[in-house]
Amino acid sequence: MSAPTARGGRPREERVDAAILSATRELLVEGGYAGLTVGAVAARAGIGKAAIYRRYETKQEMVFAAAVHGLDLESPPDLGSLRAELEWLTEVIAATLSGPAVAGALGGLLADMSDDAVVSRMRETFVAHQRANVTAVLDRAVARGELTSRPDAAVVHAMLLGPVFAWLFVLREPGDVRGFAPTLARMAAAALSA
Amino acid sequence: MSAPTARGGRPREERVDAAILSATRELLVEGGYAGLTVGAVAARAGIGKAAIYRRYETKQEMVFAAAVHGLDLESPPDLGSLRAELEWLTEVIAATLSGPAVAGALGGLLADMSDDAVVSRMRETFVAHQRANVTAVLDRAVARGELTSRPDAAVVHAMLLGPVFAWLFVLREPGDVRGFAPTLARMAAAALSA
Repeated sequence: MSAPTARGGRPREERVDAAILSATRELLVEGGYAGLTVGAVAARAGIGKAAIYRRYETKQEMVFAAAVHGLDLESPPDLGSLRAELEWLTEVIAATLSGPAVAGALGGLLADMSDDAVVSRMRETFVAHQRANVTAVLDRAVARGELTSRPDAAVVHAMLLGPVFAWLFVLREPGDVRGFAPTLARMAAAALSA
Repeated sequence: MSAPTARGGRPREERVDAAILSATRELLVEGGYAGLTVGAVAARAGIGKAAIYRRYETKQEMVFAAAVHGLDLESPPDLGSLRAELEWLTEVIAATLSGPAVAGALGGLLADMSDDAVVSRMRETFVAHQRANVTAVLDRAVARGELTSRPDAAVVHAMLLGPVFAWLFVLREPGDVRGFAPTLARMAAAALSA
């Protein structure tokens, strides 16, 4: 149960949060990262720039929050096998990374990789959250007896995220990345069980 | 044997090629991608800008050639086993991507991923060359009887390149990526042999 609010709707601050994120996503899809400005987001969201700067120190942090953070808050369900759960994780990663807002933002964000604040926020949110999901799946596989010990979650995370990322952004394969996810998950399960 | 040249040294055009690439790499390491200009590269190389534009249509193409292309022209040696050769490939990829010029350029290049000329050049050079190496390793494993049929080289390439890329640029793991390469290669060999 969430806390009750004065008028039954969402509190104003939450509405502003949501308006900023959705305006950022719309502008990313329409025009990409390079031309996006905090002023344009404020105008689209119908708020002042100060409301944005109270939440995000930089454009990069705002874009990161809109494009990447919060897209996969679901925890992985127990699907009965390591392979099925790795497939679920890989499909979530593929869906996250192939969304239009992400495609518009990710290159620009990586270009700002010298910005320590963006890197910290990426590690604290996107990376930490996915890492926790990977850990949960590996722990369940150990509990089921599918694995004798838990592999390094950072390595497994890189094994799932990396190929999807490379497929989309580096190798630029023309095929649909979602068709690639089951193959990748099957290979990862085989690698971990070997 | 290379063709003889008039004065025993490298022909002038080759010297200019090399001067452009090395000036670009120096400036990438010193100042990163965003501030790098064709004019600064020309000045550092001691040539005119026209000599650069005869070779590369855009700054992006020049940076790509300097940072990525040509770093792994060696073909993978026959090391007697799929696992050893996958390890060799992964180490080459890790060394390529963790070089200082690449770290300075790659984010900026990915930010230009809407630039079709850069994407085409990346696919024709870096991707095609590494893909050929992956194919050679897989063919040898089939010839040795380690694999019953050749897996899709694009998938295997993504499995090797992707985690290294993610480790360095997305997950930003603090550990040395070269320690990660043997684990990744072992897992890939297990996945392919399963």
